[in-house]
Amino acid sequence: MKKVTIKVPATSANMGPGFDNLGIALTLYNTFEVTETEQGLVIEGGPAEFRNDQNLVYISMLQCFAKIGYKHAGFHIKITADIPVCSGLGSSSSCVIGGIMAANELAGGPLRKQELVDLATQIEGHPDNVAPALLGNMVIAVQEQEKVYFNRLQIATGLRFIALTPDFGLPTEKARAALPKTIPYQDAVFNIGRTGLLISSLVSGSFHNLKPACHDRLHQPYRKHLVAEWDQVFSIAESINASATFLSGAGPTIMLILEDTDHDIVPELEEKIKKLTHKWTLRQLRIEWHGARIL
Amino acid sequence: MKKVTIKVPATSANMGPGFDNLGIALTLYNTFEVTETEQGLVIEGGPAEFRNDQNLVYISMLQCFAKIGYKHAGFHIKITADIPVCSGLGSSSSCVIGGIMAANELAGGPLRKQELVDLATQIEGHPDNVAPALLGNMVIAVQEQEKVYFNRLQIATGLRFIALTPDFGLPTEKARAALPKTIPYQDAVFNIGRTGLLISSLVSGSFHNLKPACHDRLHQPYRKHLVAEWDQVFSIAESINASATFLSGAGPTIMLILEDTDHDIVPELEEKIKKLTHKWTLRQLRIEWHGARIL
Repeated sequence: MKKVTIKVPATSANMGPGFDNLGIALTLYNTFEVTETEQGLVIEGGPAEFRNDQNLVYISMLQCFAKIGYKHAGFHIKITADIPVCSGLGSSSSCVIGGIMAANELAGGPLRKQELVDLATQIEGHPDNVAPALLGNMVIAVQEQEKVYFNRLQIATGLRFIALTPDFGLPTEKARAALPKTIPYQDAVFNIGRTGLLISSLVSGSFHNLKPACHDRLHQPYRKHLVAEWDQVFSIAESINASATFLSGAGPTIMLILEDTDHDIVPELEEKIKKLTHKWTLRQLRIEWHGARIL
Repeated sequence: MKKVTIKVPATSANMGPGFDNLGIALTLYNTFEVTETEQGLVIEGGPAEFRNDQNLVYISMLQCFAKIGYKHAGFHIKITADIPVCSGLGSSSSCVIGGIMAANELAGGPLRKQELVDLATQIEGHPDNVAPALLGNMVIAVQEQEKVYFNRLQIATGLRFIALTPDFGLPTEKARAALPKTIPYQDAVFNIGRTGLLISSLVSGSFHNLKPACHDRLHQPYRKHLVAEWDQVFSIAESINASATFLSGAGPTIMLILEDTDHDIVPELEEKIKKLTHKWTLRQLRIEWHGARIL
């Protein structure tokens, strides 16, 4: 019986202005252990409501097998999840990448990186989480027809990322439904410039530009009412001198970028978020350089 | 009598998706020789209709003097212009940069690069031409209140730029008036991703991504009817395998990006544009690394 284990990093997409196109991989992981069995489907781990044939890991495996033309039997899928579900940290993208990488590996690895990115984007609908989950680091990606064009970019050293995840979820569909169909022309121009400034600042280490670079008019203004204590969390980030603060993916996690300093700011941050009404879980993360891998 | 000479490169802004935020400096120049005189204003060179106190070089000088608090007398300004006027190659930005750099130098150079970029952007209205004209190379820049935040980025070697400028002008105001007030949300997302892909491809040398990276939905679709033979020129660019083609600034110049090859494609390109109805002037240019300088 063939068995494969795939470890996939969390991701933070959008990063302020880079809506649906930009994302980074972070050092927090889901692990998927897939064993071929004679028949049936057994899923172990992960939330109970996902332990069925609608499981995203399984669906992604089937899509990959269909593309490859691989005849499969049954499976045992064991999920060890550290990435919180529905939190804006790429939990669902990790399932897509875990599924297609496991399937590809079980079938002998016929698909290359480009094809895996294309397939994952077709399943997920947009490349901003799946591409960095697969490739690591920061990825800018666009889709034209069935193909994804992307650059994987190395972020300059000296930054850490602090994810603040509240005790309430925010379904991606709800966060998407909050977005308008049309926007003022100048808001598009606003985000275009900031996306360019953000990418170039992260790559070149021009961290003094991160604050204006993360400003956004495309999704955060429409979503902030869905995230309780938004203003308070952004004020706290400001008070500890975060280089930038943005809604991670479709939220509700709020991400802070901090420059490495001698003085550890985390205890002060923890004190401040403890005073909020909701429970906000703090995770200290770094950029994940490697992306998903076969263990 | 103090005298200063400033040489300012041409610029190509927007570059497809990067509307109002992105531009490159190119190896084509205007030179401004400014001499302080006892009184009056004499302007030599440049189009006859601009030889008066509404001249943009002179206006920019006055703005700079006002900011510095420098008491000035008269001036003799000699303009040697190789950048065609109203062509989308940053002719007016070169006047702004020439004017403020000359004024700053005559006043003893109190303003630094950041202040010069801020002032030039206030005069011009947007930073995409003035910033690369001043700094050289490629510049991504955004404006928040009175301050411009920018990164100057080094483009990978191996590219040349061919500017095709027709025998008709296109006033910037007319090109601006063609733009809508609101746009579909997805068009903004489209340009955001491509701007990121374009910048990162040019910096990292991922030239295979330049074609999709230069696609735009924000200004070119609204302006193409203002540029006669648009489709023909884009088809010719496609036929000689240009890496990318875009409207330079507000047009009417159309810019081609070509990878360096052993085979010189220019004679073939010249043959093809000769057959068009309008006369299109071809200029082979390179990235200008230094930006405006005092001679």
